[in-house]
Amino acid sequence: MGWMADETGLAKNAANHVALTPLSFLHRAADVFADHVAVIYRDVQRSYAEYHQRVTRLASALAAAGVQPGDVVATLLPNVPAQAEAHFGVPAAGAVLNTINTRLDPDTVGYILDHGGAKVLLCDTALLPLAMQAIDMMDGPAPRIVEVADPQAGLQATGEHIAYEDFLASGNPGFRWIMPQDEWESLSLNYTSGTTGRPKGVVYHHRGAYLLAMGTAVSWAVGIRPVYLAIVPLFHCNGWCHTWMLPVVGGTLVCCREVNARNIYDAIADHGVTHFGGAPIVLNMIINARPEERRPFDHVVQVFTAGAPPAAATLAAIEPLGFNVTQVYGLTETFGHVTECLWRPEWDDLPQEERAAIKARTGVAMPFMEEITVLDAHDRPVPRDGQTLGEIAIRGNAVMKGYYRNPKATEEAFRGGWFRSGDIAFQHPDGYIKITDRAKDIIISGGENVSSVEVEGVLMHHPAVLLCSVVAKPDEKWGEVPCAFVELKEGHDATEAELIAFARARLAGFKTPKRVVFCELPKTATGKVQKFELRARAKEL
Amino acid sequence: MGWMADETGLAKNAANHVALTPLSFLHRAADVFADHVAVIYRDVQRSYAEYHQRVTRLASALAAAGVQPGDVVATLLPNVPAQAEAHFGVPAAGAVLNTINTRLDPDTVGYILDHGGAKVLLCDTALLPLAMQAIDMMDGPAPRIVEVADPQAGLQATGEHIAYEDFLASGNPGFRWIMPQDEWESLSLNYTSGTTGRPKGVVYHHRGAYLLAMGTAVSWAVGIRPVYLAIVPLFHCNGWCHTWMLPVVGGTLVCCREVNARNIYDAIADHGVTHFGGAPIVLNMIINARPEERRPFDHVVQVFTAGAPPAAATLAAIEPLGFNVTQVYGLTETFGHVTECLWRPEWDDLPQEERAAIKARTGVAMPFMEEITVLDAHDRPVPRDGQTLGEIAIRGNAVMKGYYRNPKATEEAFRGGWFRSGDIAFQHPDGYIKITDRAKDIIISGGENVSSVEVEGVLMHHPAVLLCSVVAKPDEKWGEVPCAFVELKEGHDATEAELIAFARARLAGFKTPKRVVFCELPKTATGKVQKFELRARAKEL
Ligand SMILES: Nc1ncnc2c1ncn2[C@@H]1O[C@H](COP(=O)(O)OP(=O)(O)OP(=O)(O)O)[C@@H](O)[C@H]1O
Ligand SMILES: Nc1ncnc2c1ncn2[C@@H]1O[C@H](COP(=O)(O)OP(=O)(O)OP(=O)(O)O)[C@@H](O)[C@H]1O
Ligand SMILES: [Mg+2]
Ligand SMILES: [Mg+2]
Repeated sequence: MGWMADETGLAKNAANHVALTPLSFLHRAADVFADHVAVIYRDVQRSYAEYHQRVTRLASALAAAGVQPGDVVATLLPNVPAQAEAHFGVPAAGAVLNTINTRLDPDTVGYILDHGGAKVLLCDTALLPLAMQAIDMMDGPAPRIVEVADPQAGLQATGEHIAYEDFLASGNPGFRWIMPQDEWESLSLNYTSGTTGRPKGVVYHHRGAYLLAMGTAVSWAVGIRPVYLAIVPLFHCNGWCHTWMLPVVGGTLVCCREVNARNIYDAIADHGVTHFGGAPIVLNMIINARPEERRPFDHVVQVFTAGAPPAAATLAAIEPLGFNVTQVYGLTETFGHVTECLWRPEWDDLPQEERAAIKARTGVAMPFMEEITVLDAHDRPVPRDGQTLGEIAIRGNAVMKGYYRNPKATEEAFRGGWFRSGDIAFQHPDGYIKITDRAKDIIISGGENVSSVEVEGVLMHHPAVLLCSVVAKPDEKWGEVPCAFVELKEGHDATEAELIAFARARLAGFKTPKRVVFCELPKTATGKVQKFELRARAKEL
Repeated sequence: MGWMADETGLAKNAANHVALTPLSFLHRAADVFADHVAVIYRDVQRSYAEYHQRVTRLASALAAAGVQPGDVVATLLPNVPAQAEAHFGVPAAGAVLNTINTRLDPDTVGYILDHGGAKVLLCDTALLPLAMQAIDMMDGPAPRIVEVADPQAGLQATGEHIAYEDFLASGNPGFRWIMPQDEWESLSLNYTSGTTGRPKGVVYHHRGAYLLAMGTAVSWAVGIRPVYLAIVPLFHCNGWCHTWMLPVVGGTLVCCREVNARNIYDAIADHGVTHFGGAPIVLNMIINARPEERRPFDHVVQVFTAGAPPAAATLAAIEPLGFNVTQVYGLTETFGHVTECLWRPEWDDLPQEERAAIKARTGVAMPFMEEITVLDAHDRPVPRDGQTLGEIAIRGNAVMKGYYRNPKATEEAFRGGWFRSGDIAFQHPDGYIKITDRAKDIIISGGENVSSVEVEGVLMHHPAVLLCSVVAKPDEKWGEVPCAFVELKEGHDATEAELIAFARARLAGFKTPKRVVFCELPKTATGKVQKFELRARAKEL
């Protein structure tokens, strides 16, 4: 350990040690990028100086409303400017930001408001009914509601609650931000999807958000003054911390209330969007856009995709359209992405198919992470042989403090000094990790492990398939068998027998789905297929 | 402060908190960029896997030689691969790296070895005589010498000390690096130039080097796999921490034993150098290169320049040659640069002269710094009026721990919770800082402040002037008057009277030099003119 023989006078002081926090980024940007456009939403464009002012007013108004440092402030908001402002304004009041998934049912929202103990709720006009129902179901005291109207989207304030703009107007533009004294202080509270049981409240620290933001700007090579389209909901891992990253580089945040192909193409063509993140389902939206939704543009848009491995077919189809896709991987527990499928120049000239196969890898640790590896049952790294399976284990500064008011689950998640992801993967000889499945999604058929992801990848190559999901169906003989749920492309047709034959020609018999069901797939707010739902349906078949 | 109502189970642990250290960058790069070229020196090219291995062997050999965590390991090396390896290998042994300026006199080197208490000295073959003389003058125990031969430069090992390559060979390639447990542990020890009295030993922490490296990669937008030419001596602020930055992005370090125009052009043309840092004097080398030293290249090279404000004339001359220069500013005490003259797109179309004037500004805080401002005598920020002078004051994570074994000087430097730079500046209305002079270099003539830098800027516009430096000369009537020392360009001529007239036509009378002396300017190892030397000469005139 590097303590010198004599460290007299070498302690931390106010000049040489400042707690890491993304708040510092906006402070600097308000000065350094003062006149540059920080936020765009339809007709609204605000400079960094204005953004900073609104954030300051928000922090001040929250403090005046009785919000104390350490209190929780919740939001039920789409990706509108108020949601971005909350990412700075809430912590600038010393409070903890709890962005709630807007597609949850009232019962779960009520549970979250109770569990987190939010003092104030910033709520979109369209989501007020959800909020009111949730509050009715609460046990504890209700949060005070601040209504965020959206005249741009035709949503006028109801007048039943204080309006966000009035709330801001009441704030003091000279308010001094309450900066964290310790970078381990809590910054935000993000509830997991809760695929099993009640969602868990993941607590983020200021340090992790700072480091992920800085490291992502490096690794994604975003440059100075990128234009970023907010597709990933800001209520999901705080939008992978990208809202916190943008002021570092004077980036412009383009808000997007509704994610669809037209809005994406318009943002690229009208505002020159250079970067966005999104689940693979967003890539499919772009690929399958109708001709009248498409707009021409003459640059390459950099895309981070995560949430599920993008199918090779998706990757192959999107690149010629002007998008460069990099797969990243992470969890709510890791502030967003912590691995990236870092591209190597020697892969540039490979045939498209091989390029897509490489891009379908989960990748390697991003530069702000210490170690991401795949551990076997004895906590030893699996051999890098491209086949031996284990669990992805994660160590580094972009890992949560733990689950709020759930020390047991926290301890379990951190067994042995690693964060345990619950994701099953192998490692290629070059160290690239490849997820095969979630531990809970693996199908065990006749004693053999079947990766649902592998089977999905094959079906996605069928020209009629838009989306598909493969889960285990209980089976008397085999224990479990793969069962596929499929959404077809508009104007395309396929039969169950046809898809089974298609899969059989490309997969071992035990991996081939025994049933194919055509239906719309149930998805989470972040565009992920809800396999637990499909497993329930498969059981009934 | 963001501590939540219930923080049970939310403490730091091995999975979610890792001490920030640049060592982590090389660990990751050895895996992620394993086969990519990490270091180039003449005929030698080594991959990241090899670089990492040599570093590991160095750490292991140091430990075997009795180096304990917290011990100091010194180097007397030019910018050769061993110097870069020491930047990782020494801290990987838990030790503190003390890179000594190779152009110092034996007495000062002996003082530094004594004061820092180095256990081992890695010494270039050509610098052995200096080291031996220095050791002779030491009071305390001599360090053990490891000789770094340089056959590439015709320097064979003398055989009098253990050779670096043998030392490495004795190391264990499986040695486990001793990582800091606390990011505040000491990483390196850098002695200031010591323009007045004995040099002071500036102590760096792991945290600062990590953050400056990460933040510089963002702000300089170095991209992935840049090619960096090591012109700034690694013994100067550890080469502005760039050696630590490169593994983050898989950059290639091109070593350079001798900095001259031919070597710079060759490195750009042969290795595709994309980035380098250097004092303004290096820019002049490039501008004034002979035709046979120049090589064509077809990309733009990104240059950080610091140490002194580059003259507008220099900036105007270098850009058309394919270099984009950004001025940065910092001190040994701040790990290298902490401000940058961040370019704005709206300046792109200004006339060349105005662009150069903007580029001559000292700039704004880099993104990893908290606050850099100009304070008046009452510690209030000066008005942003483009004229009121004050002292640059600095706060942020890239500020030293303090001066080694000198708590008094440390306390003085950190008065009032700021690091006091000793540099005099004003702030433009847009917040950009502009240094006018060092506090100790300002000339006070008839009660008026004369910025030596301003007078130098004017003289640099004269076509015959290669370099110049203006200092105070004691004067009976005026107290002090400006006195200029000038180096002329090869094949050019100018008289004292001519230069005085040239300056008078562009400056107020009290700012015009009263004497002009033609001579070679005394420079420090980092290419800065030694004004204290010139002041002594001016006194004698
Ligand atoms: N690139 C990727 N490839 C494959 N799977 C991914 C990728 N990125 C994320 N995932 C999956 O998403 C998971 C993280 O999702 P998230 O934290 O948003 O909620 P969830 O895990 O779906 O919810 P819950 O924890 O409540 O079940 C990962 O554990 C992994 O299974
Ligand atoms: N861009 C710049 N413009 C003007 N001056 C600069 C710039 N960058 C650095 N400097 C000068 O260099 C100084 C820092 O230099 P450094 O720490 O290398 O040693 P030094 O200050 O010359 O030595 P000593 O502290 O022993 O006198 C700054 O305080 C400033 O005066
Ligand atoms: Mg999960
Ligand atoms: Mg100094």
